[in-house]
Amino acid sequence: MADQLIIFDTTLRDGEQSPGASMTRDEKLRIARQLERLKVDVIEAGFAASSNGDFECVQAIANVIKDSTVCSLARANDRDIGRAADALKGAARGRIHTFIATSPLHMEKKLRMTPDEVFEQARLAVRFARNQRDDVEFSAEDGYRSELGFLARVCEAVIKEGATTINIPDTVGYAIPELYGEFLRKLREMVPNSDQAVWSVHCHNDLGMAVANSLAGVKLGGARQIECTINGLGERAGNCSLEEIVMAVKTRRDYFGLDVGIDTAQIVPASRMVSQTTGFVVQPNKAVVGANAFAHASGIHQDGVLKARDTYEIMRAEDVGWSANKIVLGKLSGRNAFKQRLQELGVMLESEGEIMAAFAKFKELADRKSEIFDEDILALVGDESVTAEKEQYGLISLSQRSETGERPHAEVVFTIDGVEYKGSADGNGPVDASLNAIESHVKSGAELLLYSVNAITSGSTESQGEVTVRLQNSGRVVNGVGADPDIVVASAKAYLSALNKLHSKADRVAAQG
Amino acid sequence: MADQLIIFDTTLRDGEQSPGASMTRDEKLRIARQLERLKVDVIEAGFAASSNGDFECVQAIANVIKDSTVCSLARANDRDIGRAADALKGAARGRIHTFIATSPLHMEKKLRMTPDEVFEQARLAVRFARNQRDDVEFSAEDGYRSELGFLARVCEAVIKEGATTINIPDTVGYAIPELYGEFLRKLREMVPNSDQAVWSVHCHNDLGMAVANSLAGVKLGGARQIECTINGLGERAGNCSLEEIVMAVKTRRDYFGLDVGIDTAQIVPASRMVSQTTGFVVQPNKAVVGANAFAHASGIHQDGVLKARDTYEIMRAEDVGWSANKIVLGKLSGRNAFKQRLQELGVMLESEGEIMAAFAKFKELADRKSEIFDEDILALVGDESVTAEKEQYGLISLSQRSETGERPHAEVVFTIDGVEYKGSADGNGPVDASLNAIESHVKSGAELLLYSVNAITSGSTESQGEVTVRLQNSGRVVNGVGADPDIVVASAKAYLSALNKLHSKADRVAAQG
Repeated sequence: MADQLIIFDTTLRDGEQSPGASMTRDEKLRIARQLERLKVDVIEAGFAASSNGDFECVQAIANVIKDSTVCSLARANDRDIGRAADALKGAARGRIHTFIATSPLHMEKKLRMTPDEVFEQARLAVRFARNQRDDVEFSAEDGYRSELGFLARVCEAVIKEGATTINIPDTVGYAIPELYGEFLRKLREMVPNSDQAVWSVHCHNDLGMAVANSLAGVKLGGARQIECTINGLGERAGNCSLEEIVMAVKTRRDYFGLDVGIDTAQIVPASRMVSQTTGFVVQPNKAVVGANAFAHASGIHQDGVLKARDTYEIMRAEDVGWSANKIVLGKLSGRNAFKQRLQELGVMLESEGEIMAAFAKFKELADRKSEIFDEDILALVGDESVTAEKEQYGLISLSQRSETGERPHAEVVFTIDGVEYKGSADGNGPVDASLNAIESHVKSGAELLLYSVNAITSGSTESQGEVTVRLQNSGRVVNGVGADPDIVVASAKAYLSALNKLHSKADRVAAQG
Repeated sequence: MADQLIIFDTTLRDGEQSPGASMTRDEKLRIARQLERLKVDVIEAGFAASSNGDFECVQAIANVIKDSTVCSLARANDRDIGRAADALKGAARGRIHTFIATSPLHMEKKLRMTPDEVFEQARLAVRFARNQRDDVEFSAEDGYRSELGFLARVCEAVIKEGATTINIPDTVGYAIPELYGEFLRKLREMVPNSDQAVWSVHCHNDLGMAVANSLAGVKLGGARQIECTINGLGERAGNCSLEEIVMAVKTRRDYFGLDVGIDTAQIVPASRMVSQTTGFVVQPNKAVVGANAFAHASGIHQDGVLKARDTYEIMRAEDVGWSANKIVLGKLSGRNAFKQRLQELGVMLESEGEIMAAFAKFKELADRKSEIFDEDILALVGDESVTAEKEQYGLISLSQRSETGERPHAEVVFTIDGVEYKGSADGNGPVDASLNAIESHVKSGAELLLYSVNAITSGSTESQGEVTVRLQNSGRVVNGVGADPDIVVASAKAYLSALNKLHSKADRVAAQG
């Protein structure tokens, strides 16, 4: 029997640390459910001690996820670990993941602690965590730039205290596959009780080698857990991509000889959900989940593929969940068909009220758009007016016009806490005018960091536009997403959605990478 | 003295093979000039025999590029090689790159040739090429899945015939770093005259390991040329990213001990130019050139970076050409300042007429937008109405309106071959209505494959919108790009630009990967 490779997904923790990728509780819950459907072994749900909001997210996910282990990050101190343990109380399987930096640079410059102090703190933190939970992971932050002898001493001590997983991150994305694999191999040899823990890798992609480094950590270094994120989301150049890791291990099973429990047909739906939620686009030439990942343009390639598929293809698109856009519902579809499709898509609305609201939106859309695709439905339930989250701002109506030689003008009617307001303004374009019309009343002063539009379904000019607006205010960054067949309306919805998030989320401490 | 690593850029050949990434002659010339400024050693400019259009592109690039070697691809036959040689006649340094598949699967299923036939054809092709040019590269397509003994026999023979570079591609992106490096090492050992050629790697990114595989080919396998593309553009999941390769070799010079001649400060401008030209977005978490590649969100990271930069940063953003958006020009800037900025940006307009047209557009924009950034200028010269390319379709004016509860409507006045037409139509949104208004006259029947918008400069609601429209008609796929502060106008411009390309480009044969 082949060894099992543990897939530890940290989209909701390390991924969410990307500037602009922060998510609401409902968004996180929806993604966690998709990760469970994907059959990831461990879901890192957040960093409970960082804010009350994050605590509630971890708690909510721990309460609903049954098949995957749910994990919370915690710095190596009793308060953080206590918060993590509290948030995980309802978990069927819960893991506390505690960390401290072990590299000379991080210990001296960031922690301002001596190696002995770090050693002691790591040991005590793991001891404390094991008193709360049986499943405890220890991460040596910036592990790959740590001194091997010291790192081995720390690892041995925390395993003695009961750590069940030991993670050696390449926090800054500095590693080279053969060097990282060798580092891990040597380290494990130097730790006398190394066989009493699962070894784990966590690689960043700053030099584009996160996947290869992780796999070298497994093949050459003996690790059996890989930490990764959907779409490689994460700070800076991001983390190791779950989809690439999984497909590499599956496609090259001849070499790796490892089993992964992932249901690969859920990969593309997971990728789309994360991309739609965060507003982080997936580039077309992204491996596995990019729009072009399975497309062949050149005549020679097409010819080759027709003659024998494996001349140019090493994976099958359908195995990772690519399928032609399917018309799933239309104008005549009833409430039950809609509800069933939501379930098939893995969307669990919390109450009957939410299902009613979503169905009303669906009927409204179906009046304007004859073919409703899965992507349309996902966009629709992503719309905040159908979720349970309390909205401060809502769109009532919009009218706008532009004409060459004249300044575009817009009038927007919207609600603030249920009260209607009308704003009107000019702008450089109809979108600018509409956002100005909203700002003319709201006066949020928020800075627009990003504005992007993607057609939700391709192949038709009657696609809905999905607009992402990223706003910054007083150091906080939020994304608003809005979808509508009218791009100007979608923009106004996205802007109001971002304002709702700006006004509803608390500040918080964030974590390591 | 350290060894030199040759950077061979194939953005204009393999990159352009991405479905939807095809470029016009002027676009290719502009990118070639940027590649020269980036100081790449070799520019693969195209596949001269594939079409008259491609021939002209290679020829045009060969005539203007002086510092980099200009290369054309050619199948292993006299006609292809002759066309490549003809196209390269004006080159200061020209290279013919001929290829044939050597894997059992490709020889049997695609070529339907015996190994001996392939061997003979490879030998004769290189002999013929060497009669035309001193600089001849031979690629063994699907080399990594080839039988080692046969491949060594082919390599030895083509080196004897005078091939100066031998390239062993991982055509399907199947390799693992240590296996690929070892494969190349063994292969070189089996080729008695291996020291008479430079060995080259060409890796695809299907499993996310193109960069690591290429570097293993260099470090473990002894290759001294890497084939790569800007942004990792290329068929399916794309090629090895130039920016990642270069920064890995520079950042880890301690390990690789190799010099690269690249001017890294030109990396981000090159990335933007390729992305704007092809409409292929760069995801924010893309290494080196992604918008977030150097951004730190989490409190702990920010704190670390403030205390000591290298706690979380292994490269400096400014070293790869990231700089804050600079206001470079405004309403009062004169023609000379504009011309000088174009030169600094590496944009060479072909004639005074083009400069005049671009300057007029610039003044028009400056009237509507107070701050003009480099990105605005690049978008402006990307606009086809300022280039020498003959346009069939042009925009005169547009008016549109939308209002909640009513069907959006647009009127577009545009020219076809200089004659004015007015189209009006309804649509699901103002963009849909505007494109319908154009189609109501043109009746191209083209299918819209992609519609995307990016704000060109962030941080201001008065950003221009840059719209990419990808159309397909009779099996041909083209991109149109349009920029305007009004997103609806930008969409109409993009649509007309795509129609121009649909009507101007000839079909062609395409190449291997």
